[in-house]
Amino acid sequence: MKIGILGATGAVGRQMLICIEERKLQPSEVRLFASERSVGKKIPFAGTELTVEMVSQERLKGLDYVLGAVSNSLSKEYRPMIEKAGAVYIDNSSAFRMEEDVPLVIPEINGKDLQGHHRVIANPNCSTIITLMALAPIAELSKITAVNACTYQAVSGAGMNGISELEDEIEAVRKKEEVHPHVFPAQIAYSCIADIGTMLDSGYTTEEMKMQNEGRKILHLPDMKVTCTCVRVPVFRSHSISVTFQTEKKIAIAEAEKAVASFAGDVLCTDHIPSPLETSDQDLVYVGRIRQDLCNEKGLVLWCCGDQIRKGAASNAVQIIEYLDHEAD
Amino acid sequence: MKIGILGATGAVGRQMLICIEERKLQPSEVRLFASERSVGKKIPFAGTELTVEMVSQERLKGLDYVLGAVSNSLSKEYRPMIEKAGAVYIDNSSAFRMEEDVPLVIPEINGKDLQGHHRVIANPNCSTIITLMALAPIAELSKITAVNACTYQAVSGAGMNGISELEDEIEAVRKKEEVHPHVFPAQIAYSCIADIGTMLDSGYTTEEMKMQNEGRKILHLPDMKVTCTCVRVPVFRSHSISVTFQTEKKIAIAEAEKAVASFAGDVLCTDHIPSPLETSDQDLVYVGRIRQDLCNEKGLVLWCCGDQIRKGAASNAVQIIEYLDHEAD
Repeated sequence: MKIGILGATGAVGRQMLICIEERKLQPSEVRLFASERSVGKKIPFAGTELTVEMVSQERLKGLDYVLGAVSNSLSKEYRPMIEKAGAVYIDNSSAFRMEEDVPLVIPEINGKDLQGHHRVIANPNCSTIITLMALAPIAELSKITAVNACTYQAVSGAGMNGISELEDEIEAVRKKEEVHPHVFPAQIAYSCIADIGTMLDSGYTTEEMKMQNEGRKILHLPDMKVTCTCVRVPVFRSHSISVTFQTEKKIAIAEAEKAVASFAGDVLCTDHIPSPLETSDQDLVYVGRIRQDLCNEKGLVLWCCGDQIRKGAASNAVQIIEYLDHEAD
Repeated sequence: MKIGILGATGAVGRQMLICIEERKLQPSEVRLFASERSVGKKIPFAGTELTVEMVSQERLKGLDYVLGAVSNSLSKEYRPMIEKAGAVYIDNSSAFRMEEDVPLVIPEINGKDLQGHHRVIANPNCSTIITLMALAPIAELSKITAVNACTYQAVSGAGMNGISELEDEIEAVRKKEEVHPHVFPAQIAYSCIADIGTMLDSGYTTEEMKMQNEGRKILHLPDMKVTCTCVRVPVFRSHSISVTFQTEKKIAIAEAEKAVASFAGDVLCTDHIPSPLETSDQDLVYVGRIRQDLCNEKGLVLWCCGDQIRKGAASNAVQIIEYLDHEAD
């Protein structure tokens, strides 16, 4: 198996390489691609070192899988080259997620949607992945009709630059210097920013609508109603989501807990409350505080946390390779 | 007018003194009370200095108003002394808030509830004050039937110790030292804690139930359904709340915006999104992102921020004195 990574020096790209090693995919070759300024950089992998290259039609040749961790516009630019090279493209950008013949997959939930794929597969939005990992086991008990989600999103969602912007701002505040945000629309150190993505005429952001649009596609629930508020918080790498949801038939708390506890990839927390700090740098989604929605007889409320760079992006993409590879056996 | 402050050296107590000066109440005397270790401390006020004393029946004599910024247990201990001294007690603790003959008041919303008070008045919970300041003008257009609130609460909610715990933890992380939380149940620096107050058998915390119980009393809506998730975030002093709510009749976004914009104490933000950093150290509640709830025809969603120490506590209490004093004229 030969794998390429686009955007290999970014937060998600680096994590993809780590996940390939950790999950023992043992590819015969890994090629790392990044922008010009990173070319020549050496990155350790499985006891050796890989050198970052510029992407080219020639260099994509022979790869079985390409993992994409680049912007929407770069992803669109590279897609034809990857298709021509004959590789399967697993893209973390949102460029193709809603295209009908592009499977949008969280392997534990809808891995089956990979069957008959057309060589382009989309990795879902990070908050959507973490929220759906909590909801999917309960959706199996009864159809979810409505979701209201409020996110507490880490700065890693904006990549390495997001992480260093928080670090720099904390340092500036310490030194009583002025803060000059450039990655986020305002200071994130010691603040919250309810403004992620682009604002639409509806008053929702593009980030908030992903929860509805991607959620419907992944859960195969085209009529599921979703209201979302996405908020950036000064946390480094795990997202947390407070989710209220309604089901067609009433689900008891114990039933919901049992379903979550037995779902691969989830950890049910009943002895403590999950935190984004606790769930950082590992692949599981922690789900806790499952309780009755006091506004709706058929509603439940929960709190879930998961690593945005790992399960919210890199690990999920690598799991898609594993799933495809396993199917091919 | 003679005013006493209980807990005068805490975050709320200090702010009460500042608010008395800022709002030009011009009391003829202010007496500051705190615990033994603060006795003798000098605190500047209106060009002079006040000395912190231990509270006693004798020292409460002659006061018209006592502002309480102490724990529930201390508040219960001092109440009989204050009543005996003949002062009106405006208490920021939650000890008496739900007592039938104790008005629970946000002056802009239900100042009239102060009429015929029995000398004990309760200041509401901080998140409840900020949320209701956003909802009250809309509740005047149509009865609010249900509220789902997710909070993003500042560390100042735990007083001076909460503020210094965040500062200390940030410094420990910088020095790569271990973090030892004692005020909060876990590390708050670079994390979120969905655990404020005491956990009840229902799976809700005491803090979360205040939004329902106090909200119903203040808005005079005993049947209003409220689901709340309270989350501590690494922010110093303003709380933010994402609120989804349903009304009896459908309210247009423009109507809701107009109501908020013309409500004393609120700032409607349509040109930017309010942040807790922006609303810190001032008395107004900023309300933005009013939009349609995508799950409910008669629902709206909004985002509001306000200073927890000021409007969420100290300023609201001082405003109660102003209201009573104005009524007395």
